[in-house]
Amino acid sequence: MIKVGIIGATGYAGGELVRILMNHREAQIVWYGSRSYIDKKYSEVYQNMFRIVEDVCRDDDLAKLAEQVDVIFTATPQGFLAGLLTEEILSKAKIVDLSADYRIKDVEVYEKWYGIEHKSPQFIEEAVYGLCEINRGKITEKTRLVANPGCYTTCSILTAYPLVKEGLIDVDTLIVDAKSGTSGAGRGAKVQNLFCEVNENMKAYGVASHRHTPEIEEQLGYAAGRSMTINFTPHLVPMNRGILATEYAALKRKPDGSLPSYEEIKAVYDNYYGEEKFVRVLEQGVCPETKWVEGSNYVDINFVIDERTGRIIMMGALDNLVKGAAGQAVQNMNLLFGLKESEGLELVPCFP
Amino acid sequence: MIKVGIIGATGYAGGELVRILMNHREAQIVWYGSRSYIDKKYSEVYQNMFRIVEDVCRDDDLAKLAEQVDVIFTATPQGFLAGLLTEEILSKAKIVDLSADYRIKDVEVYEKWYGIEHKSPQFIEEAVYGLCEINRGKITEKTRLVANPGCYTTCSILTAYPLVKEGLIDVDTLIVDAKSGTSGAGRGAKVQNLFCEVNENMKAYGVASHRHTPEIEEQLGYAAGRSMTINFTPHLVPMNRGILATEYAALKRKPDGSLPSYEEIKAVYDNYYGEEKFVRVLEQGVCPETKWVEGSNYVDINFVIDERTGRIIMMGALDNLVKGAAGQAVQNMNLLFGLKESEGLELVPCFP
Amino acid sequence: MIKVGIIGATGYAGGELVRILMNHREAQIVWYGSRSYIDKKYSEVYQNMFRIVEDVCRDDDLAKLAEQVDVIFTATPQGFLAGLLTEEILSKAKIVDLSADYRIKDVEVYEKWYGIEHKSPQFIEEAVYGLCEINRGKITEKTRLVANPGCYTTCSILTAYPLVKEGLIDVDTLIVDAKSGTSGAGRGAKVQNLFCEVNENMKAYGVASHRHTPEIEEQLGYAAGRSMTINFTPHLVPMNRGILATEYAALKRKPDGSLPSYEEIKAVYDNYYGEEKFVRVLEQGVCPETKWVEGSNYVDINFVIDERTGRIIMMGALDNLVKGAAGQAVQNMNLLFGLKESEGLELVPCFP
Amino acid sequence: MIKVGIIGATGYAGGELVRILMNHREAQIVWYGSRSYIDKKYSEVYQNMFRIVEDVCRDDDLAKLAEQVDVIFTATPQGFLAGLLTEEILSKAKIVDLSADYRIKDVEVYEKWYGIEHKSPQFIEEAVYGLCEINRGKITEKTRLVANPGCYTTCSILTAYPLVKEGLIDVDTLIVDAKSGTSGAGRGAKVQNLFCEVNENMKAYGVASHRHTPEIEEQLGYAAGRSMTINFTPHLVPMNRGILATEYAALKRKPDGSLPSYEEIKAVYDNYYGEEKFVRVLEQGVCPETKWVEGSNYVDINFVIDERTGRIIMMGALDNLVKGAAGQAVQNMNLLFGLKESEGLELVPCFP
Repeated sequence: MIKVGIIGATGYAGGELVRILMNHREAQIVWYGSRSYIDKKYSEVYQNMFRIVEDVCRDDDLAKLAEQVDVIFTATPQGFLAGLLTEEILSKAKIVDLSADYRIKDVEVYEKWYGIEHKSPQFIEEAVYGLCEINRGKITEKTRLVANPGCYTTCSILTAYPLVKEGLIDVDTLIVDAKSGTSGAGRGAKVQNLFCEVNENMKAYGVASHRHTPEIEEQLGYAAGRSMTINFTPHLVPMNRGILATEYAALKRKPDGSLPSYEEIKAVYDNYYGEEKFVRVLEQGVCPETKWVEGSNYVDINFVIDERTGRIIMMGALDNLVKGAAGQAVQNMNLLFGLKESEGLELVPCFP
Repeated sequence: MIKVGIIGATGYAGGELVRILMNHREAQIVWYGSRSYIDKKYSEVYQNMFRIVEDVCRDDDLAKLAEQVDVIFTATPQGFLAGLLTEEILSKAKIVDLSADYRIKDVEVYEKWYGIEHKSPQFIEEAVYGLCEINRGKITEKTRLVANPGCYTTCSILTAYPLVKEGLIDVDTLIVDAKSGTSGAGRGAKVQNLFCEVNENMKAYGVASHRHTPEIEEQLGYAAGRSMTINFTPHLVPMNRGILATEYAALKRKPDGSLPSYEEIKAVYDNYYGEEKFVRVLEQGVCPETKWVEGSNYVDINFVIDERTGRIIMMGALDNLVKGAAGQAVQNMNLLFGLKESEGLELVPCFP
Repeated sequence: MIKVGIIGATGYAGGELVRILMNHREAQIVWYGSRSYIDKKYSEVYQNMFRIVEDVCRDDDLAKLAEQVDVIFTATPQGFLAGLLTEEILSKAKIVDLSADYRIKDVEVYEKWYGIEHKSPQFIEEAVYGLCEINRGKITEKTRLVANPGCYTTCSILTAYPLVKEGLIDVDTLIVDAKSGTSGAGRGAKVQNLFCEVNENMKAYGVASHRHTPEIEEQLGYAAGRSMTINFTPHLVPMNRGILATEYAALKRKPDGSLPSYEEIKAVYDNYYGEEKFVRVLEQGVCPETKWVEGSNYVDINFVIDERTGRIIMMGALDNLVKGAAGQAVQNMNLLFGLKESEGLELVPCFP
Repeated sequence: MIKVGIIGATGYAGGELVRILMNHREAQIVWYGSRSYIDKKYSEVYQNMFRIVEDVCRDDDLAKLAEQVDVIFTATPQGFLAGLLTEEILSKAKIVDLSADYRIKDVEVYEKWYGIEHKSPQFIEEAVYGLCEINRGKITEKTRLVANPGCYTTCSILTAYPLVKEGLIDVDTLIVDAKSGTSGAGRGAKVQNLFCEVNENMKAYGVASHRHTPEIEEQLGYAAGRSMTINFTPHLVPMNRGILATEYAALKRKPDGSLPSYEEIKAVYDNYYGEEKFVRVLEQGVCPETKWVEGSNYVDINFVIDERTGRIIMMGALDNLVKGAAGQAVQNMNLLFGLKESEGLELVPCFP
């Protein structure tokens, strides 16, 4: 049985880790870290866990924790893990970091977009970007540090990845217009996240400046084989969970000037994702809906070719707390310990 | 492996049965009955099931179905099962009926409240009212027909049952004010259930005339040892899932004129429900919230004694599609086949 | 032109006062008081007011404000006005207080339920309880201080008032089960009011202890001609606006043992409210819905007699920010200045 | 007093026309046309209008109606008006058509995108496209037929118009990603618009095929001085009202290779909209939110220049039932009769 510690267990992503791990046959949570609720019963913070979790919340002493567990999930603010991580900790426990601290290889890019100094850049190189469907081979029992991808980024990257990798679209034209449920904003008490401010409302935010932008650019850049810049615009939607990414790009024309056919593009997607448990390429004409993946680790993807404009519109949907955070983190944990990759993640989407 | 057939598999309760049974280790669905979608892939009706369910919808031929399965769930309109049920069918397959056809023992009461003739009253006596926590002992491998309780009724009954059974409240004063999410209204295309009609709105309906009233009265009447009438008022709430029942009754005073204490009432609830897997009596001062049971088979219950008025306010919350329908139906199936009662129902509530 | 000052202009009730007064022909806001946003443009706090309100927020100096305006609306926390009010202030400007400070005549009751000391009980006697439909005659150009009723109380009282006043129900059996949209919880940044905590959720709160209880009891007690205690249970609903009160009481039987008829009860309601602009007694069988009064100053009321239990179920719906707060405050202002009572309040409900 | 007839008065747009016209000082509705509810009281269909509208619904006899009124609003399905319109009708009453029948000048384009034959193309030339801020000069007391723009189109066009007209963006790169509340889907009883299907969900629909596409292309094409094709992707959002358009385009670089500055672009917007009552160009850094215009005739617009990609992201928000339908229709009526353009439209947005 893998012993698990969570730092930030009372945030929404932390809570989702707890929910998922309750039904994981090989892992057991032994440390519910929450600086805000030390000594409080976890189930008093999340009453849904009443009579399911009996533990109390503990502080976030990473060094002490590392001695007691096999793996640590850090669902913490940017900069937290970078400020505490040491070689000694990493030598004792594996870490799956749900923050952005080790996602971006270029520390200058990190510091520019996040506006904070990176306190332990020496571990960036070692960290594996934990987008399992793409980097599965790099996440092994030898891996010590996994940078779990962001919610928007997981959705944005997986939706476009096969076409970028195969060179089928002009990456300079890629635009990602993304929409997210409000749990992505976290559980902090802020006026702008109050029910009455979000409900019956829709807005863009972080336009041309959202921190997930360089993460998408870096990862898709690897696929493209060159650096690239995109427009990424997140929007806040009055729903709890779910991200929908609508992505636009110019299709490269064939030598005869024609566009690739639906079948050709579909074959590419199927080639990349046909065997993937958690990526579902939908049937022709069916647009992904966030509700269809709610509570599950699935990403639903589809596309439409617009002959008039020569562009392809790609769409991806996932649950930001599952495949966009906790679910993918558990998927990474499974890889780290050589377990079945889908262990604990056979979650059937809940509708309605 | 128990072979399962579902009639009405494309309604919301039917869909929830499918979701739950996907993770049931001892049961397998072999018949997805849906008169409206015959020959259509089930996953085209509920896209959340894409790549999870490969079957197509079939008609609702009960006799034919009975030959192929061990148990049939009927998630069908009132009168459907009563119109088709025969001794031959019952001799071949067990039935868990999610409609009201066999819930009420007095056929006149049924016909009055439902406004339809009961076509097979000969089976009413045999049917067991499948409120597992109360009638568990009557649901055995010999049982052929289970009347699965209504959503409002499950919540209303379980919330008040211990106090009624112990004679602690004046049952003539019992008032149930219940609030339900909109999935309880079903998937029929009706103007009053459109998003724009329900959203940002709240209303009572079926005031003094809702069909769950006699069902509550009958079951609580058994507990009280005499017939009783109550006020039951359902309300429609702009959320997908969840029922909250707020119940009011005068507490019987002790010989010295005092009211029972919190501890005394709590002890009664704990006595009835302390060992129940799916009933959680919350800690003092914590009001049940529907979100804390969403997606799970739990009923959360608590109460407040009002010294000023001498009344007790009881509150119960459940997910109308799980404990209020499909979850309880599976719980009944487990009892019918001698399985662990909670098999397939270890569902952790999803928050947020 | 009446000069208006608002203290607490950036809360939800304050914002609604601004919205309503923008279309009031006889009043003009000259002071937008908001301690939290001093010197900030009002329209930066509420962007809906961009290019409509050009003023900046000012502090809440009541004495200074009283010299500049004819009437002050205080949309402030409990105890604020009581702590500052002086004879000098009252001699200069009329006050419509949207807090509870002067609603309850018995200062001990106030201090017990609100848990704070009342700092200026000497003004309680003078204050008029501003439930216009009932106390209209007492709100005149001579009145200096109006205690604007609470949102739940306005709804609860008006719904039951005619029957209490006419002695048609047993007031000891009165139970008010009320449901409110989330704007009633105010704009404070609290975890429990975050979108993800409220959305898809329903709960009771303040059970047997909510502060609107004694206010309802006092006002209905005047109608009953004696003191009374009730059960009042508020619930939080995932919608922005609206209160629905469902009220239960035993009807008094006639000498022959029969219950009053629908027509008799309807005649009583019509007698009280038939001429009232803002109270709509609906037609038989139509249940009030909060959406039908949204954005308007209406209260929609109806009732059902349950012959089986001898009880009447009364239902009332209003917009908590309009008739439950700002609208009624403006209605009171109109009375205070001898204007047409509905001036500025001809707001047509917005649907959907 | 202008006499108004409405055909389709019981749809959502029709209902909004009624709401707005109730507070219009120069117009009076004398005909509430609704084929579905003939002889039913209008306020029984929309209970918010109880005691406000006393009329009953009438059939949709256009010829008869034209004799009785000065102006007819047709809030009807595509093809309805085109199938009935005659010179005689137009000679008697002005018509503001909220359907698409006369919006598109090229009848082949109309027939291709709408999939129906146009029955009266002879009136297309005469019809004025009623986007008031752009075509105000063409809507005069001599005008007989106004094609009221679509909801998505109004938002999409106004957001980009100044930059297209001034040649500041490369129109071939224009992409409109639009999000709409559910009232835009109308009041028809369809499964996909049920509360439980829309709530907690988000999806794109009509990808590369939505009928508002050619309407946007035609109107922006006039501004650009040449034909153009765009990508337009609508999305369904779980809210009642509101459209948010996020638009992307490559900014044309100046001769020195630099991009226009924020101030330069802002000056262009201010030049076009600075004097417009109903278009609000927000302050730098403020993203439009649909809630800030809810219930009002405003369009809120802003933009961000992305130096990294050379694109501009434009955002526009409006209430689809007001500026996107009924409000703009009334604005057109005001122009048709020489009234103050904002008469009846001084609606303050409602928040929250």
